[in-house]
Amino acid sequence: MTTHPMTRPLALSADPIAATCPAPLAENERVLLGHGSGGQLMAELLADLTPRLGTPALDDAAIVVTGRPEIVLSTDSFVVTPRFFAGGDIGSLAVHGTVNDVAMMGARPVALSLAYIVEEGLPLEELRLVTASVARAARACGVPVVTGDTKVVGRGAADGLYLTTTGVGVRLPGACVSASQAQPGDLVLLSGPIGLHGVSILSTREGLGFDSEIASDTRPLHRLVATMIAAGAQDVHVLRDPTRGGLASALNEIATASSVGIELEESSLPVPAQVAAACEVLGLDPLHVANEGCLVAFVAQEAAGRVLRAMRRLPEGARAKLIGRACDAHHGRVVMRTLVGSRRIVDMLVGEQLPRIC
Amino acid sequence: MTTHPMTRPLALSADPIAATCPAPLAENERVLLGHGSGGQLMAELLADLTPRLGTPALDDAAIVVTGRPEIVLSTDSFVVTPRFFAGGDIGSLAVHGTVNDVAMMGARPVALSLAYIVEEGLPLEELRLVTASVARAARACGVPVVTGDTKVVGRGAADGLYLTTTGVGVRLPGACVSASQAQPGDLVLLSGPIGLHGVSILSTREGLGFDSEIASDTRPLHRLVATMIAAGAQDVHVLRDPTRGGLASALNEIATASSVGIELEESSLPVPAQVAAACEVLGLDPLHVANEGCLVAFVAQEAAGRVLRAMRRLPEGARAKLIGRACDAHHGRVVMRTLVGSRRIVDMLVGEQLPRIC
Repeated sequence: MTTHPMTRPLALSADPIAATCPAPLAENERVLLGHGSGGQLMAELLADLTPRLGTPALDDAAIVVTGRPEIVLSTDSFVVTPRFFAGGDIGSLAVHGTVNDVAMMGARPVALSLAYIVEEGLPLEELRLVTASVARAARACGVPVVTGDTKVVGRGAADGLYLTTTGVGVRLPGACVSASQAQPGDLVLLSGPIGLHGVSILSTREGLGFDSEIASDTRPLHRLVATMIAAGAQDVHVLRDPTRGGLASALNEIATASSVGIELEESSLPVPAQVAAACEVLGLDPLHVANEGCLVAFVAQEAAGRVLRAMRRLPEGARAKLIGRACDAHHGRVVMRTLVGSRRIVDMLVGEQLPRIC
Repeated sequence: MTTHPMTRPLALSADPIAATCPAPLAENERVLLGHGSGGQLMAELLADLTPRLGTPALDDAAIVVTGRPEIVLSTDSFVVTPRFFAGGDIGSLAVHGTVNDVAMMGARPVALSLAYIVEEGLPLEELRLVTASVARAARACGVPVVTGDTKVVGRGAADGLYLTTTGVGVRLPGACVSASQAQPGDLVLLSGPIGLHGVSILSTREGLGFDSEIASDTRPLHRLVATMIAAGAQDVHVLRDPTRGGLASALNEIATASSVGIELEESSLPVPAQVAAACEVLGLDPLHVANEGCLVAFVAQEAAGRVLRAMRRLPEGARAKLIGRACDAHHGRVVMRTLVGSRRIVDMLVGEQLPRIC
């Protein structure tokens, strides 16, 4: 500080140290309304959280440098309950979910934004844990969180904590995937087992005891997508991660958007035994249960073998398999050949199976 | 539909019309948990909302085409209460807030994403009104909403509706603004009167009756920024919209980030008479009251006159004025020369003046 004549009255009216160096927040403090005020308390909260994100500052806006012309933008709010579950938490889920949505456009995610809506009274420690989880997941993805926002609402005006992540990505060279690009004859590839996320959340939430055996599959899929696009950019027609609504809803959306029929082989569907058992008990269809770590792809028949082999070289695609095909019949419909040889229609999830799954 | 043999059992097991054409939602329906499920009800909700946004589809991710290398990303959640207030609503505010945050980086906003968190039981009509307001504001800004997300949480798990908007922009040629770029000698320009948004919200919320006289200043400022940058790209050092925490908090953050002192002239501060009167009654400092439609700029002294004249040519800058200067003293401090000639320190807002102002 200079010795300008005006510094003296300044020092008298307020503690200059306190004004410039936010006091460290105690472990047992709780989030107050003032933490979202834009004022001093918020500066303290950000000074506490920002280093945990591994980013220099959470400014209102940030520059993302890229030389590509095609920029992909995707956003998702996360309201999952419970916030901590077998295999992940709301923080890692928020990163993976948005990274995967960007990736499903055939893009390489390059930056994320993160907006918190926090209920007054949330233990600060929990906010820290979640923030650290965001940072860890973002680092593992190689996608930085570059900007953010924090709002605090009164007790009862939110259920603890909601996150909204938005991702920016650049299209991979040659990629032209879209839900409307499925062609009759395309083979349908699935990168891994289904039902793990939804059953894990439900089990943790309801205390059903499955959670010791079943963990959410939450994981980033952008490297898998890059590998698939590299193996056949023009041949990968559709990419989709079957999250809310499950595989059935994702396939129905693709069937409608592309005006094709889809035929599935039940015998090919990778439903883990624990998921099948839990679904049996809970009266759920595994095809409607949310996933957070697998993708479904529609690939030109002649390239499908090559793409499948490429997928299997990565851990997140190690169990990739062929589960069906697109056809020029029953447009907009998904039909499954069951284990006993009959055919049944696979509908979209109607209503709500499990609220706040992500 | 083709006459493929499989169409018959399909038609028997589910109504194909209902499955492919979402039923229009009635005016008096309320949002259900199922509206956020990823399934059929959500498809119906989106089919209802998307046309109101004026965007072809609210997919998980979207392409934003730009040839520029410097991409700006900004995100903000909006939890304002009440959701409708004199001068705007949560929808227009969410667009303006994010457009302005992108603009304050010296950037031209090119696309927005929009994420809803909706409480079960919110009248659908209200969601429509807000969505229409988003669309209107986005259209007026010339910045499309290109992607979105919808989550529904149970009754009591949110207070009606929260929005998160994220903006992508491209840096204007030559722009190099940053909160840390203020230089001693810079003049401080303010684009319009202060205190209107905060007083409007408080008045509406508390039924104080000021709302007939005072309307929020919520408006987009990106055109004003473009005009200012065109008038002197290298000379505009800092741009900031003083939202939560008010002008005082914004100036304190700039003083700290740039390691300069800031001197304000109280006689120059444009505080509308109704705002001053309301603040008097409510015990508020107009300098701490939130704004949503004005900006403060630090401009090199030699260019300030030119930039000010350029600002005044636009409606949103018509009442722009010089309010102070940056100096090489009392670094990190904002000092105001009062009307009676004394000096007082202008502190950041401490604690919470008015929760859920935006």
